[in-house]
Amino acid sequence: MAKVRVGVAGYGVIGQRLADGVALQGDMELVGVADVAPTLSVQALKEKGMPYALYCAADEKRADLEKAGIPVTGSMEDLVKKVDVMLDATSAGVGARNKELYAKHGKKGIFQGGEKNSVADVFFHGYANYEKGLGAQFLKLTSCNTTGLIRAVDCVDRQVGVEKVAITIIRRVADPGDYHRGLTNALQIDHAPSHQALDLMTIMPHIDATGILVHTPVTHGHIITIVMTTKKDMSVEAALEAFRSHPRIRVVTIAQGFQGNASFFRYARDLGNPRGDMYEIGLWEDSIVKSGKDIMFAINIPQESVTIPESIDGIRACMGMQRDRLEGTGKTNEYLGIGKWKAHA
Amino acid sequence: MAKVRVGVAGYGVIGQRLADGVALQGDMELVGVADVAPTLSVQALKEKGMPYALYCAADEKRADLEKAGIPVTGSMEDLVKKVDVMLDATSAGVGARNKELYAKHGKKGIFQGGEKNSVADVFFHGYANYEKGLGAQFLKLTSCNTTGLIRAVDCVDRQVGVEKVAITIIRRVADPGDYHRGLTNALQIDHAPSHQALDLMTIMPHIDATGILVHTPVTHGHIITIVMTTKKDMSVEAALEAFRSHPRIRVVTIAQGFQGNASFFRYARDLGNPRGDMYEIGLWEDSIVKSGKDIMFAINIPQESVTIPESIDGIRACMGMQRDRLEGTGKTNEYLGIGKWKAHA
Amino acid sequence: MAKVRVGVAGYGVIGQRLADGVALQGDMELVGVADVAPTLSVQALKEKGMPYALYCAADEKRADLEKAGIPVTGSMEDLVKKVDVMLDATSAGVGARNKELYAKHGKKGIFQGGEKNSVADVFFHGYANYEKGLGAQFLKLTSCNTTGLIRAVDCVDRQVGVEKVAITIIRRVADPGDYHRGLTNALQIDHAPSHQALDLMTIMPHIDATGILVHTPVTHGHIITIVMTTKKDMSVEAALEAFRSHPRIRVVTIAQGFQGNASFFRYARDLGNPRGDMYEIGLWEDSIVKSGKDIMFAINIPQESVTIPESIDGIRACMGMQRDRLEGTGKTNEYLGIGKWKAHA
Amino acid sequence: MAKVRVGVAGYGVIGQRLADGVALQGDMELVGVADVAPTLSVQALKEKGMPYALYCAADEKRADLEKAGIPVTGSMEDLVKKVDVMLDATSAGVGARNKELYAKHGKKGIFQGGEKNSVADVFFHGYANYEKGLGAQFLKLTSCNTTGLIRAVDCVDRQVGVEKVAITIIRRVADPGDYHRGLTNALQIDHAPSHQALDLMTIMPHIDATGILVHTPVTHGHIITIVMTTKKDMSVEAALEAFRSHPRIRVVTIAQGFQGNASFFRYARDLGNPRGDMYEIGLWEDSIVKSGKDIMFAINIPQESVTIPESIDGIRACMGMQRDRLEGTGKTNEYLGIGKWKAHA
Repeated sequence: MAKVRVGVAGYGVIGQRLADGVALQGDMELVGVADVAPTLSVQALKEKGMPYALYCAADEKRADLEKAGIPVTGSMEDLVKKVDVMLDATSAGVGARNKELYAKHGKKGIFQGGEKNSVADVFFHGYANYEKGLGAQFLKLTSCNTTGLIRAVDCVDRQVGVEKVAITIIRRVADPGDYHRGLTNALQIDHAPSHQALDLMTIMPHIDATGILVHTPVTHGHIITIVMTTKKDMSVEAALEAFRSHPRIRVVTIAQGFQGNASFFRYARDLGNPRGDMYEIGLWEDSIVKSGKDIMFAINIPQESVTIPESIDGIRACMGMQRDRLEGTGKTNEYLGIGKWKAHA
Repeated sequence: MAKVRVGVAGYGVIGQRLADGVALQGDMELVGVADVAPTLSVQALKEKGMPYALYCAADEKRADLEKAGIPVTGSMEDLVKKVDVMLDATSAGVGARNKELYAKHGKKGIFQGGEKNSVADVFFHGYANYEKGLGAQFLKLTSCNTTGLIRAVDCVDRQVGVEKVAITIIRRVADPGDYHRGLTNALQIDHAPSHQALDLMTIMPHIDATGILVHTPVTHGHIITIVMTTKKDMSVEAALEAFRSHPRIRVVTIAQGFQGNASFFRYARDLGNPRGDMYEIGLWEDSIVKSGKDIMFAINIPQESVTIPESIDGIRACMGMQRDRLEGTGKTNEYLGIGKWKAHA
Repeated sequence: MAKVRVGVAGYGVIGQRLADGVALQGDMELVGVADVAPTLSVQALKEKGMPYALYCAADEKRADLEKAGIPVTGSMEDLVKKVDVMLDATSAGVGARNKELYAKHGKKGIFQGGEKNSVADVFFHGYANYEKGLGAQFLKLTSCNTTGLIRAVDCVDRQVGVEKVAITIIRRVADPGDYHRGLTNALQIDHAPSHQALDLMTIMPHIDATGILVHTPVTHGHIITIVMTTKKDMSVEAALEAFRSHPRIRVVTIAQGFQGNASFFRYARDLGNPRGDMYEIGLWEDSIVKSGKDIMFAINIPQESVTIPESIDGIRACMGMQRDRLEGTGKTNEYLGIGKWKAHA
Repeated sequence: MAKVRVGVAGYGVIGQRLADGVALQGDMELVGVADVAPTLSVQALKEKGMPYALYCAADEKRADLEKAGIPVTGSMEDLVKKVDVMLDATSAGVGARNKELYAKHGKKGIFQGGEKNSVADVFFHGYANYEKGLGAQFLKLTSCNTTGLIRAVDCVDRQVGVEKVAITIIRRVADPGDYHRGLTNALQIDHAPSHQALDLMTIMPHIDATGILVHTPVTHGHIITIVMTTKKDMSVEAALEAFRSHPRIRVVTIAQGFQGNASFFRYARDLGNPRGDMYEIGLWEDSIVKSGKDIMFAINIPQESVTIPESIDGIRACMGMQRDRLEGTGKTNEYLGIGKWKAHA
């Protein structure tokens, strides 16, 4: 079977990781990536010897790229023509404009969480609503926090049913290397309910969700606490068992050395994962407690890489590569090496 | 009526504020403070011209103080003899030893949250269990987070009854000026349930409480989110009304400019409050949401100063100065100027 | 003699402190302050009971202020008419526009460091070029770092002559309470030479200055290291002696507890200084070393308050209140309580 | 020729990188690594499938490792027996004890900067004093800051001669993942002169060096500013030319996107370098300025990885693999891929 041809628009924090993730899929071909400026990421691509062809997403910027010595293979339209599906990781708002180009050429498009829901036919999560994505032309992925959150909620929901969640998102405020945003010695609160709670309800409309988000001056990973009301009572042990069996959840303990979000980053670097990335969310065994019949626990969200697997699931769904949720996500996991670690655990 | 004579042991972050707070009480006399070393705080006391007499809490250290030019009025035992009650704000563990000295002289003692509960006859909170402190010899105050948390929980509990709370504590990791502790670019999680939830249950045994605590690299104020199951259903409006009527809760909005913990510190500095301190907890109107029948909201805890009013309440209770909860806390509020701001609101 | 009447435009971080500083001067009268919005600082002014009359600096914003319950005394033009001199602490660029209003009414104006030099007749520093400010209509103050830096350089220059300085500015990136700027886990470097070095040469044209500035994610105080080539050789002891004799330099040691910028803030809070402010720069005795014949040392700049004394010096100079540098700065020091601490040292 | 057999003691931040670096050398064989506990790094080694054999450095801890499921190949003495040279990256003080074991078996040892100089025969830097390391039994490497600093100083010294340097070290206070140390919203100053200046003089005794060190709350890379007095006058252009020609110095500009230490980390991650490591120091073209006849500039030190090349140089020197400085360092560079990027520049 011919490989599915994939392009990536926007070679920034997410775009690079999408490109790397697609390149690992045995049944996909990464045709190229598109960007507009000789950013550090594009300069790094050049220093690596251009493993991915670069297309220029704005004709008037091509000269800037070439002046910086970056080889340009063609225009973004050239790239769109060559692919079956575009993964769009451009800045919020740009994706909506790119959609017209994808539509013009009858290509599929998968947008990241920053775009408005209206950009897509389906608001998508690989584990929670894979089936809805089947054959769709335009998907929009959930954002990093929502993606990780839904993994955990869906995991319990499929076991005992979830009625209600109240979340507290302790959010990293910038990525490593960011200079355009950041906080210094300040926590910042957003209006409640947080969009992640609302987004969860869009994907899982049978659940009542609310939450409060607080920005914190760190760069490695969000921590979310979840108070969850289940339909059937669930013990700490049963929850633990469920979480442990999920390929994209890594259950850890403080005693092991996972003291916080920075431990996950340290561990992923020590694993030799490119960029110190981790596809799994972390879940602290020591955080799981009962609140009456409710259950409460904390997860860790590696914001730069957590949406990559679900984005690739999206390709599988919209292209109809696998029609079954577990088959589709399982194929993504296999090629990304997710769950391999459980063999060693 | 003769003023109640008060001494303060430990002139650090909390001890200084206790001394200042007692000095403002029209019906109390601050006899002096005790410490052992020429810390920055003690040097500042000297630079201010010794508004409070300093007693040396360890005879063998007296020479160090005098070498640093700090006038020493006497030993800590001298201080204890002169007072009716000691506020003990020494490092955790030291208070337990000091207790013997207080007992030897038949004096009362009020310990801060860092000591073990066993140090005291009563684990005390001015609003939640004032009556239990009446006439007691030894009280222990709740810690900063627990003190602020109980204000909010007790406020609702007295209106509609509280059954259950699940809290997420987003904790500042150091005080301004601390060099002996701190985190850099890392969130750190503690084993659940957090001690604040357990402490709340000791003070309010009819409530089921649990929670998760995450340390964050900031110095100004904790933020706590609270998911609260009430006995009678409570609307957002009713909750808001209740919180607004509490003298030690300051209801604010993000639109007003209270974007996070640092805004409270900024505001208290602009108010001209000594040290930029605030006695009230903050509560964001924009954070109050319903989670099914539960109610969820976020509060801000000014860690350095929040326990001062309840500590002074403790003096009133154990000395029997006021026998009624609202009379006792009201007197403290009056002398500290708490609630005066509501007149301007 | 009639008191000099002063108004302050812009009631933000600097404006508030200018107002407080002027209010302390026995020979000046603070007529009022002007601002345009009900910021936290203006809300705090109201909560304090309007110790300073507020004038609205933009007619179309008056309704916003009144809607927020802030009493407005008049327009900014009303304020300008009533004063002899305006201290302008508005955002960069606004001062240039305000200047026209001051000129229209024949009033003097003193601008903060953010404005362009062209806004003023004289680029002013109380200690370095007081005489140049005598009788001038428009002065511009040096910025916080330059103000503190020049204190130290001028101090040595008047003793042994300074030929050359090479500075490294380790800059705080935001003020406490700032949410509109900040860095998270990142140092940021500016193009060299830093503007502070260039500004120093404008004030002290006989000195060759250069420097590098690095932003750091902290809020309390800059640290500057200075490598200084003197005309006559200067020993560490002689430098120490000179620094100790300067009223606006506070010589400290690490052993005393001054471990860094946060220690100064802690100490000023413990002193009971409003907002935890300090007018003096800190200078570490333990940092003074010889580099060949050069001398190297480090100073601490409390960015929010350091320019207040020199701004008030500016009033004295431009209004001709004192015609002598030491008399003028001495009067400012006396009313601000600067140097009083030396009596206790 | 038989490969030189190398062991690494201590599999922490530095030890891991030493092991990886040695494993890349075509003329060396990494026999194994030694550690005592199932740290996150050792757990990651296991999850990767034990690419390096692990030896237990303390017999009484072997059970702990095995309980955590870590395969142990033997004791540290077993490892020492099998190798020609040990790279010792254990905690400060442990290396001195390990030295006895190395000596007992007649093996060579190379210690990291944390150990006392007395542990070694030669205090070593690959570029500055390679020849002194030839044939030595015990070498001690310079620390991370000193290693990077000496690269830049030696580079200029060999061109025009360096007389004197005055440095300001803006130091990261913790590594990513550290929870045992850190600062929050505080700069911290050390007694001057900093040890790095003293160490530089030990390696390059013909230079007069002094400096001030300030700790900052960041985790990615130190920035050092250097004021350098040269024997012959050196223009900015000549300095730039010299730095550009050095294999282990990467000259960058702010305009390119290198805004600070975090940009280097971001760039190294984007390059796909394991752990986001970089062996080169960064040097900002935009920071180079003249201070009279002196020259001033700023460098970036990637603290986790910068000493790896010089440590491997140490193996080459003490084992006599290459007798010439440029040949030895060149071989290290070749195997580590250092300088390859210049081809693309």
